[in-house]
Amino acid sequence: MREVAVIGIGQTKIGKLKDQSLRDLAVEALNAAVQDAGLEQIPDALYVGNMLAPRLNNQAHLGALVADSVGWRGIEATTVEAACASGGAAFQAGVRAVASGMVDVAAVCGVEKMTDVNVNEAVAGLATAADADSEGIYGVTFVSLNAMIMRRYMYEFNIPHKAFANFSVNAHQNAVNNPNAMFRKAITADVYHNSPIISPPITRHDSSPICDGAAAIILCPLEMVKDLSTREPIRVLASATGTDSIATSDRRNIVELDGAKISANKAYKQAGLSPADIDVFELHDAFTIIAAMSLEACGFANCGQGTHLAQNGDIFLDGKIPVTTMGGLKARGHPVGATGVYELIDLITQLRGEAGINQIKDVEIGMAQNIGGTGATVVTHILGI
Amino acid sequence: MREVAVIGIGQTKIGKLKDQSLRDLAVEALNAAVQDAGLEQIPDALYVGNMLAPRLNNQAHLGALVADSVGWRGIEATTVEAACASGGAAFQAGVRAVASGMVDVAAVCGVEKMTDVNVNEAVAGLATAADADSEGIYGVTFVSLNAMIMRRYMYEFNIPHKAFANFSVNAHQNAVNNPNAMFRKAITADVYHNSPIISPPITRHDSSPICDGAAAIILCPLEMVKDLSTREPIRVLASATGTDSIATSDRRNIVELDGAKISANKAYKQAGLSPADIDVFELHDAFTIIAAMSLEACGFANCGQGTHLAQNGDIFLDGKIPVTTMGGLKARGHPVGATGVYELIDLITQLRGEAGINQIKDVEIGMAQNIGGTGATVVTHILGI
Repeated sequence: MREVAVIGIGQTKIGKLKDQSLRDLAVEALNAAVQDAGLEQIPDALYVGNMLAPRLNNQAHLGALVADSVGWRGIEATTVEAACASGGAAFQAGVRAVASGMVDVAAVCGVEKMTDVNVNEAVAGLATAADADSEGIYGVTFVSLNAMIMRRYMYEFNIPHKAFANFSVNAHQNAVNNPNAMFRKAITADVYHNSPIISPPITRHDSSPICDGAAAIILCPLEMVKDLSTREPIRVLASATGTDSIATSDRRNIVELDGAKISANKAYKQAGLSPADIDVFELHDAFTIIAAMSLEACGFANCGQGTHLAQNGDIFLDGKIPVTTMGGLKARGHPVGATGVYELIDLITQLRGEAGINQIKDVEIGMAQNIGGTGATVVTHILGI
Repeated sequence: MREVAVIGIGQTKIGKLKDQSLRDLAVEALNAAVQDAGLEQIPDALYVGNMLAPRLNNQAHLGALVADSVGWRGIEATTVEAACASGGAAFQAGVRAVASGMVDVAAVCGVEKMTDVNVNEAVAGLATAADADSEGIYGVTFVSLNAMIMRRYMYEFNIPHKAFANFSVNAHQNAVNNPNAMFRKAITADVYHNSPIISPPITRHDSSPICDGAAAIILCPLEMVKDLSTREPIRVLASATGTDSIATSDRRNIVELDGAKISANKAYKQAGLSPADIDVFELHDAFTIIAAMSLEACGFANCGQGTHLAQNGDIFLDGKIPVTTMGGLKARGHPVGATGVYELIDLITQLRGEAGINQIKDVEIGMAQNIGGTGATVVTHILGI
């Protein structure tokens, strides 16, 4: 197995990007990543992470579409889908291809264009990440599913809603200094507490936005970095996926993310590391409840105690386990199929020491975790310098 | 890089399967593949090939869904999509995972359930394999796109419609002895000639059907076959993908499949083989015109001469380059995301010597080619005993 390295990253702004198509976004991110790498050849393969284009944009077959649009006609190209974990899964496909020795230079691109349709269509599209037979058929949305989980969690562990505030406050604070973030505006705990209810107990500030964006990464074998790139490599130390039941009602325990636990433990084992070795954690804060449960599943807190890390400031940039360092899904944004790649890019930015005002000191090893559905697919990557 | 072997295959019948859901079909095929392999452990990872479930079945996120439904909750699972080449692309993902050393036992499952909706919705779904911006927007269907290609091909090479007859006759003849085929009925050239026009010059008997089905394959490292399976291994000698423009109008030459040429040439190079070494070729006869162009792109005939191989019987079971030996897309059926896996299974059945009345003599090496869109994504595999 060849060791795999990241040599380039690129991203578009996130938001309601009415002047750019799905294709435009992917091309912008990929070109930026190639330029960032200083890569002078065409990649051998492209893996596109996307969830909703077949429904919202009447466009399947994104692999070939994006490869041709960016000027790489002919190369291997496919789409990888795992609901909101599509981006992380596409990155894993790239890692596998390079590790196998069958591909030298792999490009990964997460892309989503959700704002061309009305919001109800986007919400219905997102609900296809749930079990159509036992959940979708009853009209569930992802907010309502997460609301059930959050309600049960608050009841079972006796956690008040306000305990989640800092997940949102931290994400918004960190997004201020991210030029690509959707919401570059800090919020106070008071703003969080007074946020309008969407599906109780979930408020607007527990939730991430519907939006557009694309992010791209270039991978190659570690041994070839000097020949291909002007960049110092970031090493891929672990790449692991775990799953759980797709239907929330079928879980062993609705307030634990078994898929995240499996995924993180596989990743730790691959890398020979433990939670104590992780300097920064780009977690999947689609909802504040998922941020708390992800911290628990990955071994940073005991069950029911994830909010403590938020309340005591451990998740801040200067805390013990900084999360969502460039704004997370909450404030950077959550263009679904692109999110996993954005998470990795934010992590890579920290590992490169290029996070500017948001830079964490002495970062050597970090983790990014991308979650699909209410936790049915979880992709965890550990990267290091 | 580890050598990869097939140890198990499984499939459902193909047809309008009103009593089985998408999930039921995938589970049936995977269980059959596990049983065929004599596998006594749960696979480490699952790659699902599917194109249309997010639109036709309101179900994305099939990786986790299928993994849980078959009883493998927790394992790595994702969906791979490349339009009608999704099955081949999923198999390639499995090969990469095993070759990389990161996964030991990989399961691949192609599945599609197209008949739960009315046929217009299925046709609209299929059109998402075309370029939404420059083709889909004008209401193209896949029959109309292929009709334009066939018309131009017939004009440019002065080929009459009747020259394509044997692609259909051969496929139907071979399907008679395939218990899983959709159309187990031989047709004569006369039936072909008198077939009703769908989109001129394409008739019903130039086209493959809308249908349901699932097919599955179990992969492991060649060196582990004896420990894991009761089967003799079939070796994966090459796994290659090539692409072309997604829009048919953007092609270098509309009557040549450049993506298939790239894909086949990469595969020949990986395996150290040439067309002369291929004993059997499971090609992608979504339309008779594509069968002819695939034979040309893969080096079995010169440009414009693919129909000669049909006319002189070279494509028959006892011919020089037998194709669609168990009925092909035309008569076995074309459940889109599953088709690439069915093609591989038919090839593996020949390599195992288990094709019964349809068995080709002295088969040692064979090729399967899975084509997405009108040729934008082409996945080619070469397998051997």
